Amino acid sequence: MSERKYAIGVDFGTQSGRAVLVDVADGSEIATCVHPYANGVIDEKLPGSGVRLEPDWALQDPNDYLEVLKQAIPAVLKECGVDPADVIGLGIDFTACTMLPTKADGTPLRFLPEWRDNPHAWVKLWKHHAAQPEANKLNETAAELGYEFLDRYGGKISSEWFFPKAWQILDEAPEVYEAADRLIEGADWVVWQLTGQEKRNSCTAGYKAIWSKREGYPPNEFFKALDPRMGNIVDEKMSRDIYALGDKAGGLTEEAAGWAGLKPGTAVAIANVDAHVSVPAATVTEPGRMVIIMGTSNCHMVLGEEEHIVPGMCGYVDEGIVPGLFGYEAGQSCVGDHFAWFTDNCVPAAYEREAEQRGVSIHELLEEKAASLKPGESGLVALDWWNGNRSVLVDVDLTGLLVGATLATKPEEIYRALIEATAYGTRIIIETFEENGVPVNEIVATGGLPDRNKLLMQIYADVTGRPIKIAGTSQGGALGSAMHGAVAAGKAAGGYDTIAEAAQAMARLREESYEPISENKAVYDKLFAEYVLLHDYFGRGANDVMKRLKQLKAEIRTNS
Amino acid sequence: MSERKYAIGVDFGTQSGRAVLVDVADGSEIATCVHPYANGVIDEKLPGSGVRLEPDWALQDPNDYLEVLKQAIPAVLKECGVDPADVIGLGIDFTACTMLPTKADGTPLRFLPEWRDNPHAWVKLWKHHAAQPEANKLNETAAELGYEFLDRYGGKISSEWFFPKAWQILDEAPEVYEAADRLIEGADWVVWQLTGQEKRNSCTAGYKAIWSKREGYPPNEFFKALDPRMGNIVDEKMSRDIYALGDKAGGLTEEAAGWAGLKPGTAVAIANVDAHVSVPAATVTEPGRMVIIMGTSNCHMVLGEEEHIVPGMCGYVDEGIVPGLFGYEAGQSCVGDHFAWFTDNCVPAAYEREAEQRGVSIHELLEEKAASLKPGESGLVALDWWNGNRSVLVDVDLTGLLVGATLATKPEEIYRALIEATAYGTRIIIETFEENGVPVNEIVATGGLPDRNKLLMQIYADVTGRPIKIAGTSQGGALGSAMHGAVAAGKAAGGYDTIAEAAQAMARLREESYEPISENKAVYDKLFAEYVLLHDYFGRGANDVMKRLKQLKAEIRTNS
Repeated sequence: MSERKYAIGVDFGTQSGRAVLVDVADGSEIATCVHPYANGVIDEKLPGSGVRLEPDWALQDPNDYLEVLKQAIPAVLKECGVDPADVIGLGIDFTACTMLPTKADGTPLRFLPEWRDNPHAWVKLWKHHAAQPEANKLNETAAELGYEFLDRYGGKISSEWFFPKAWQILDEAPEVYEAADRLIEGADWVVWQLTGQEKRNSCTAGYKAIWSKREGYPPNEFFKALDPRMGNIVDEKMSRDIYALGDKAGGLTEEAAGWAGLKPGTAVAIANVDAHVSVPAATVTEPGRMVIIMGTSNCHMVLGEEEHIVPGMCGYVDEGIVPGLFGYEAGQSCVGDHFAWFTDNCVPAAYEREAEQRGVSIHELLEEKAASLKPGESGLVALDWWNGNRSVLVDVDLTGLLVGATLATKPEEIYRALIEATAYGTRIIIETFEENGVPVNEIVATGGLPDRNKLLMQIYADVTGRPIKIAGTSQGGALGSAMHGAVAAGKAAGGYDTIAEAAQAMARLREESYEPISENKAVYDKLFAEYVLLHDYFGRGANDVMKRLKQLKAEIRTNS
Repeated sequence: MSERKYAIGVDFGTQSGRAVLVDVADGSEIATCVHPYANGVIDEKLPGSGVRLEPDWALQDPNDYLEVLKQAIPAVLKECGVDPADVIGLGIDFTACTMLPTKADGTPLRFLPEWRDNPHAWVKLWKHHAAQPEANKLNETAAELGYEFLDRYGGKISSEWFFPKAWQILDEAPEVYEAADRLIEGADWVVWQLTGQEKRNSCTAGYKAIWSKREGYPPNEFFKALDPRMGNIVDEKMSRDIYALGDKAGGLTEEAAGWAGLKPGTAVAIANVDAHVSVPAATVTEPGRMVIIMGTSNCHMVLGEEEHIVPGMCGYVDEGIVPGLFGYEAGQSCVGDHFAWFTDNCVPAAYEREAEQRGVSIHELLEEKAASLKPGESGLVALDWWNGNRSVLVDVDLTGLLVGATLATKPEEIYRALIEATAYGTRIIIETFEENGVPVNEIVATGGLPDRNKLLMQIYADVTGRPIKIAGTSQGGALGSAMHGAVAAGKAAGGYDTIAEAAQAMARLREESYEPISENKAVYDKLFAEYVLLHDYFGRGANDVMKRLKQLKAEIRTNS
């Protein structure tokens, strides 16, 4: 044993798990190991049996999560030679809602020979979209019966969330539903495997399973109204005991300690969600500073002292991000994906040749060309709805729009217009928060994009009129989880008593930051006004052309 | 001399002149020669002096027109060995309004040493756009003073037309205006050079110089209101004697016969405009059948027995296309140009590689991929305003729009949407004609596009719900001019007495044609309804975002 203490965070992503060993004193990331899931995302056929999956399905194998514990944790320990006795805590974060059916002892049905060929016995990954019919019926029923919980989620429950997925099991495989003693988030299931205790976290319960600290779950009558067989789902298959983030779930069992190469009894934190755990890892444990995780999509999180209904959010949860505060979450469905679509489909061969000759990536070339333009110079405005609109319109049937093109319009002008459109979308989210009593004074960006595109960061600062800081870590999930591990261990064991203390010591910002440039802001104010006009015209019912075109497309594809 | 009689048509285009020798009996095109203009389009500096031109200028050298007579006509005679005595008539057509200042004897000021370094002494080509301020003032004044002639031109006189160009000379070079005894269309100037007689044609007078058979030119008071120095422009610099299309302007002078290698006295027809002369060359000399010249832009022409004010047309002229009927003209600013922009700017390298490997052009590859889509399958609708909207909105400040894009949108889907958008634009023109008493039962397409893109033709048939025939000739201007040469010669000389007779004998359609497919039409009716909704929202003042973006762009470019 040494003076220095360590915590381990394990970030369970979509394709792999990432373990990071962190110095508790200052948050230094000492060692990292990424272990890919052997079965990855299962969206065509079941491993082993080859049973075909319908479109929109996305499954995972719970064994892949255990392998991360068995491979990645020992690997980081080995890499840096840290004594397991100096690892005081372990935290995990997960994609969500990623859920599975298990027996009463936590054994996934998928592990049992009699169930393993049934797709409903496997883990339904967050992006499993086949429960849309159930989501639609749930939303209609809730609206009809006047349940107000919809207001907490921007008016709609997503097909990605817990109850639509659970209901799909009941609808399509009642025998699996019947056989499942528990329906549980992957995050909580992993903590159960580590500690031997089923302790469910407030983050997934709140954001994905319609739970609130004040009201708990919707009443049994609601679930009964959905399907009489589901009336007791919470009491039969879930739990009303929900634990706060940063709490200690328990100590590592002998078995789990053996897998991980850690000491039995090492503190394990209540599980968390990848996005939400990144907030304290980006130094934010107080109101007023919005964290945006910028990657293929944008996830916006901000803390508030009071409860406010903010229209079009993904959700808000009392203590959903840090204890003692309301956690508000909003989102944009299409950000990095947008630029990837553009470079794959709309960049001419001449640009590809130029990038090759100059030894830069096509994104770098586009960024350079787009950076030489002034705001407003392209004459273009886009609506960033290539993948629908999450906040604040909550409408997957909206589509992309570009206006202002001429025969002189260049690819880099369209590229810049797409970046600007996502920035306008973020500004609408910020203004909606502020109009509803949740202040946003500063932005802290994290995720993959801030590293890769300085132009984008400056445009976000100029459009939103707010300074943008960049989180110090590029492994926000794992660092945040390690921080929660240190809090689960507690100050007495060399950790911290609160996540705010942990953030102060372990999280940091980069030196670089982006300040709004006032002349750019002035032009963007005009362009934003145009964006809002188009946003409201196409998004709020004045002209539902996007939905009609999408409906017509669906009809034609179905009939052909 | 032989039994067979011939006529020659000379089509003066933007970059070159084209002479075609045609058999009068059946319109066979026996020989063709294209002679490029040595000075082409002059838009940077004057040849010789190197005097710099402002942006938006476009000049030509009248000597280049004479060279076409001297080179291309002898070349076609030589190629086929026809005896000049068997050439009974000569007709010409020209771009318009393409105008120049001359002395009283027809000598262009540009030929005189004292004027040749002054840009205003040269020919102002049709696409010289520097007279926009004059066009704006002219339109404002006409509207203020309540002149109704604007109604004949869709409510606006274009900066490309005669009086804005003449006024620009007066504004910027009053000494040139003063020195010019005549201001004249290039078309009429060439006929003057051929026959020694200044005889102005009804087509350019009517479509480009606000002349009508019934009312003549606007009164002198109108021109005086524009500028007191211009009050007598018609009587001082032009002529009130306007000649009908198909009339004989005169016989070839000795000098001109020497240039061309033809016999002195050979009949020369009154001049015509390239687009309008293509109408009889496409077999159309009666109402009900619209000719569309499809190339970089679309020009729509249809004949009518009665006079109707049709909103948003380019113009209508009594006897402007064929004698005895009203000639109605509409236009779309951006058709072939649209597809060229798309392939230059939006087609990814992977498609270019595929086209190369398969040995097809990128347009062919896109056409093939787009042809495999069903109407409505892309979910896209575009407004085809990349170069503004000519008919029916008459607004150069409108810009392009695309709606319906998703992350699955492919380049060929956008390409098809752009084609469809131009077809919707044509349908709006057709419906506007019909709503205002000018029937359109059938379409005859001519120009470069019908040859190159079968998909486009089928889409036009499906969208408009009308059969589309294709003109037999790909040299509609030159054939139409030769037909007018045959009419100028008259039946007694082996030609024809009317353009209708000439068309019956000399013009033909191809075997191939396009019939609307009813299930496609049904889907396009739905999509067209969406197009109209967007067209009216963005084009008729509900949301002037396009103009505001363009204005902002102009301000930013001016200030930087």
